[in-house]
Formats: sequence, structure tokens, C-alpha cells
Amino acid sequence: MNYKNFPMVSKVIFGRGSFNQVNDVLAPKRLGIHSPFIFLIDDVFKGNSWLTSRISLAYDDRIIFVSTKEEPKTAQVDDLVEDIILKGKERPSGIIGIGGGSILDLTKAVSIMLTNDGLAEDYQGWDLVKNPAIYHVGVPTLSGTGAEVSRTAVLTGPEKKLGINSDFTPFDQVILDSKLTRGVSKEQWFYTGMDCYIHCVESLTGTYLNAFSQSYGNMALELCKEIFLDDKLSEEEAQEKLMMASWHGGMSIVYSQVGVAHALSYGLSYLLGTKHGIGNCIVFNHLEEFYPEGVKIFKEMLAKHHISLPQGVCAHLSDSEFDIMIDVALGLEPLWENAIGIDWKKTITREKLKSLYQRM
Amino acid sequence: MNYKNFPMVSKVIFGRGSFNQVNDVLAPKRLGIHSPFIFLIDDVFKGNSWLTSRISLAYDDRIIFVSTKEEPKTAQVDDLVEDIILKGKERPSGIIGIGGGSILDLTKAVSIMLTNDGLAEDYQGWDLVKNPAIYHVGVPTLSGTGAEVSRTAVLTGPEKKLGINSDFTPFDQVILDSKLTRGVSKEQWFYTGMDCYIHCVESLTGTYLNAFSQSYGNMALELCKEIFLDDKLSEEEAQEKLMMASWHGGMSIVYSQVGVAHALSYGLSYLLGTKHGIGNCIVFNHLEEFYPEGVKIFKEMLAKHHISLPQGVCAHLSDSEFDIMIDVALGLEPLWENAIGIDWKKTITREKLKSLYQRM
Repeated sequence: MNYKNFPMVSKVIFGRGSFNQVNDVLAPKRLGIHSPFIFLIDDVFKGNSWLTSRISLAYDDRIIFVSTKEEPKTAQVDDLVEDIILKGKERPSGIIGIGGGSILDLTKAVSIMLTNDGLAEDYQGWDLVKNPAIYHVGVPTLSGTGAEVSRTAVLTGPEKKLGINSDFTPFDQVILDSKLTRGVSKEQWFYTGMDCYIHCVESLTGTYLNAFSQSYGNMALELCKEIFLDDKLSEEEAQEKLMMASWHGGMSIVYSQVGVAHALSYGLSYLLGTKHGIGNCIVFNHLEEFYPEGVKIFKEMLAKHHISLPQGVCAHLSDSEFDIMIDVALGLEPLWENAIGIDWKKTITREKLKSLYQRM
Repeated sequence: MNYKNFPMVSKVIFGRGSFNQVNDVLAPKRLGIHSPFIFLIDDVFKGNSWLTSRISLAYDDRIIFVSTKEEPKTAQVDDLVEDIILKGKERPSGIIGIGGGSILDLTKAVSIMLTNDGLAEDYQGWDLVKNPAIYHVGVPTLSGTGAEVSRTAVLTGPEKKLGINSDFTPFDQVILDSKLTRGVSKEQWFYTGMDCYIHCVESLTGTYLNAFSQSYGNMALELCKEIFLDDKLSEEEAQEKLMMASWHGGMSIVYSQVGVAHALSYGLSYLLGTKHGIGNCIVFNHLEEFYPEGVKIFKEMLAKHHISLPQGVCAHLSDSEFDIMIDVALGLEPLWENAIGIDWKKTITREKLKSLYQRM
């Protein structure tokens, strides 16, 4: 028996308004005047001086606004790395990602690819990264993905949607300022929050579960119920608690795994470009047979917040398109093993997955 | 407003039997054949081959068995550091502490004092440490203190009982193997577990509380109730859950603080040498006015496990001895501010503390 040796985020700041400390946090990490800090910021914040005015750019520091209309791609990482290398005199002092899970995963991947040869797609998998990444900082502006604590950077490559999983992936620094999560649309708030809820359900019902993951999962699940079903929290409290739920939900996956929803959602995302949060919701809504209690509560949450999920997203797909999604989903073996057990191949057939996708 | 930037344990392994991986974990950290690994082990494990046979000593590696009959002292740290320097050819590759909170705090302090000049007492306080510590590993064999995650190493010095609080204090690696907690006496198990329970009560009722500390505190508190009041857990489950409770309880203090019990208990410990776990229990038993619900549940736990606390420990003390304890307790200002609020000096008088100590 060999247990995972999990690398944790090195330093964390939690508090409303803590983003104001970003310049103080970065200052001692500057390697030189030609070693810039590169800020990768979700382009929804373009022109938002409330956020950007708090960043003090010096020397060759740059802000790069990144679109997150699509899921992050390996080619997008390679382009960013090339741009940073070509425009910079020296290797950056640090990469700071400000945004949701897509930006955080891009930041982790870019910081790795600045010190490792080749293409991002070469590192999709487990423990393929050779050299430590550039110092990297995560500042979530959406809560739920757990990307702020995870040792993965999920990317869609030419051949697969799969994370760069390595000990060098986790952030060196995370700033958890729940004020940054204000202003998100209700739908985005809900879909991203449900990523956390679904993590917990998949982790807590999985065969990989141990006391470590269970304690984090229980905590995150209770917080999700409080946030999405009770009416007792102020907006501020709900934002702070969802930020912690995301953190704990991410930690719950450390010794556990996600499950059926994530496996199927990766297929949707690979073929149709469905974003991760909404993709999980579309899938999870049809998984009563795997997660009866979890799906029941999910439907209550949907109803309470008047969320209408897209219907019939697979209605017009061809057989070969179904096959592509099924290939992606079946390739995620640890997720199925966690969800169903070591005999999962007996019940999780291609036909089974096709019939599930057809309902979505 | 300035929020703490908390340094987390860099890597963590959780699992029953995970201590078997200790040699694999250390191997890549060896700096050279003359840079030994030094194992500081509680001397209750002397002659316990079940534990020590799993450590592969190589080159100049050494095991030093350390008595924990008394609380760890600054002079004890200085002696260990001198011994390690005098007997070693080069600076150690790492210090590995295997034991309860005393051993873990000694390990953290020794690893700091190997790279910082002067005496351990010079660093009692906040952020006085200049240089990064030697690589240090914590392997708890008791659960409850939270020493495995904290950024402090609590020591009794010539002038005060106070921690070395610094960003260099937390462990680089923690191994959480609940099998190592078997064999502890019921009393020791209870007193150490109550350290966690009391952390949670003090944190959750404190004025410093925020959503970060609250979520960790709630989780640890629920685990403590499950372990110490319910009868539903197997011995193995209870050991694993108490290990997680200790971890989360320690994390709960990050943005919060301990309170009245710890302040008074430090006084007892400084004057009488009372060990931390039992000292907390002796004190907490008389704190209904500060923690009514917490003390009520504590008394239920005492009764359920047939624990008889020492009585009259302050019965024969002189006025000057009371003054010493009161000085130590009142010196811990952040603890009082957390427990009572910024106006704490209005109600927490010397007379008040004397009357509390006289009941113990």
C-alpha cells in the first residue's frame, strides 16, 4: 500500500479585501527588474478599475487579459508561454492568475511550461513534469472548482481533456478574497458552486474515500447545503462560505476522486466545448441511479434558484460523435473505479454511456 | 486591515501504515553522506522495534530518544542543537520528530535553531526567526495538539512559556499514520484529544473568528463529538478521525486564537510544569462562565470515559506563586482579546484570575 504524498498550497491569505495585499505579497518575490510579474486575468475584468487599479505594475510587469469563453486549451498555454518568453527579457518572477477555474488552471500550466521543454500536451497525465514551476499565485474570483488547491491543471488538448497532475502544479500562494466573487451572474455562481457540490457527492460516495477526504468532503457538503438551500446567510457570509466550501471540496479529492459526473462531463466538454460547471450540472441531473440522494438535493437546489438547465444537448449527435464522448469518458479509469469499484467495466459499457448521453 | 499570510505544511501523507513510506520520503532529501537525518523520538518508543525497525539509518543518521516527562524547554532545544552540531560533520539533511506535541514542537524548534544564531529563548515571540529552518518532518503519535499544522513551537523558557511563531516553523512534511496512535493510555488519549476539543471551543466562540477558521473549527468539533460521545466508531475509525480532528483544529486557530483555557493553562504549566493536555482539562473544567455549552459537553465526555481530573492543584500555593501564574496568563494578550474582546482588561483582573486558579 502506497499513500499519496500530497503537496499543499504553500501560503494562503483569507479575508474580504485581502486582494489589497497582493503587491506586498509579490514584492519579496521579484527576481530582478527584467523579471516581470505576469498577471493573467479573466477578460470579464477588462476595464474594471475596481480590480485592476489595485495591481501596481512596475518595470516589465504585464497584465494579459484572457478570454474564458472556451475551456482552457493546451495550445492556449503554449501561445501564452511563447508570448511571455518573446516579450520578456528574463524569465518572469511570477505568474498571477485572477479568475475562475479556467484562469487558475491556465496559470498553473503556464508557470510549469515556462520551465519545462516541449508542449503542454506532453505533460497531460500524472507526474510527467520534470522541473519546478515559476512562482505562481492563484486569486479565485469564482468559487467552486477547487482549482485553487488542486495538484492538477485541466486542459483540453488535441487528443484528450486531461490535467497536468504534478507536485509542481499547486499554487505557491493563494489569496481568498470573497469580495472578488461579487458581480458574477446567478447562473455562473450556481454552476461553479455545483462543481464543488458534485465533487463532494462523488468523493463521499466513492470507493476511494478515507477519513481525510471524508472530513473535508463533509465540511464542504454542509457548507453547500447551507449556501444553496437555507435562507439564513447574508450575501457576504454566503460568498465567504462558498469560498471555503470550494477549498475544502478540492482537498476532499486529494485521497479520493471525482466520479461519474466528471467522467461524462469531460466527454461533453471535449466534443461540444461545454464549460465545466454547466457540463457537470447537465450530466449530474441524469445520474439518479448512481447518486440518488445527491441528485435529489441537486434538483431542490435547481428549483430553489430557478435555474433552467439546457435540454437536448446531445439530441442531434451522430454515432461517431457519441463514440468520441464515450472514448473520453471511458478513458478516465480512476474516476470509474472510484465511483463503481474495481469491477466497473462489467456495468459501464459503451451502450450504457450512450443511453446516458442520449438523455442529456 | 491586514490579513495573515499563513504558511501551510508543504506535503502531507495520510493513511494507516503510511509511516512505512518514511524512508522513501526522506531519500531524495539527503544532502550528502555526512549530512545525517536526525530522528527525535519520544522515549516511550525506546525498545519498541515495531516502530524503530521501520527506520533505515544510513551513514551518520541518528535516533535521539527524548523524554517528554516535562514540557519542552528552550534549554532542551539548545542542548539538542549543540549535540547535533558537535557530533555531526555537516549540517543535517533533516530533523524528523516522532511523538506527541512536545516532540513535534521540539523538532520544529531544533530545525530552526540549527540555522539561526543564539538561543531558542531569543526567538520566543512572533516572526523573530531570520533564516529558513532545516528540512523537518512531523510524525504525530498522539492526536489533538494541532502541532502538526501550526506555525508555532511552544517552549518554556527562563522567562516565559511562549511559542516560536514564524513562517519557517511549519513542517515541510507530515506523515499522518493513525496506527502510530495505538497503545497510548486512555488518560493520555483523552487529555490530548481534549486539547483539540478546547481549541475548537475557544476558536469558535472567539471574537477573531472568520469563515476560514469557523469551517475548520466546526469540522473538528463535530469529529470530537463523534469520537468522544458517540459509540458508533470502531477503534480504527476513531483513531483516524481524531487525527483529522487534530489537523483541522490546528487549522482553525490560523485566523482565530485560543482563549481563556490556554491562557490559564500556560500559567499552570509555567509554574507547576503541568503538561499541556491535562493542564487544559484542569482549567477548562472551571470555565462555565466563559464557555457554558463547551464545558457542559466536556463534563459529559469526562464522565463517559471515567476520567478523574486532579483536584486542588493550586491549594497550597503562596501569593507570590499565584502572581507568577497570573503574570504568565495576563501576558498572553491576543488570547484574552480573542476570548473577551478588546475591552478584556475591564473584567479580566488579577483578582479574577486568582479566584479561578484557587478553584483548580
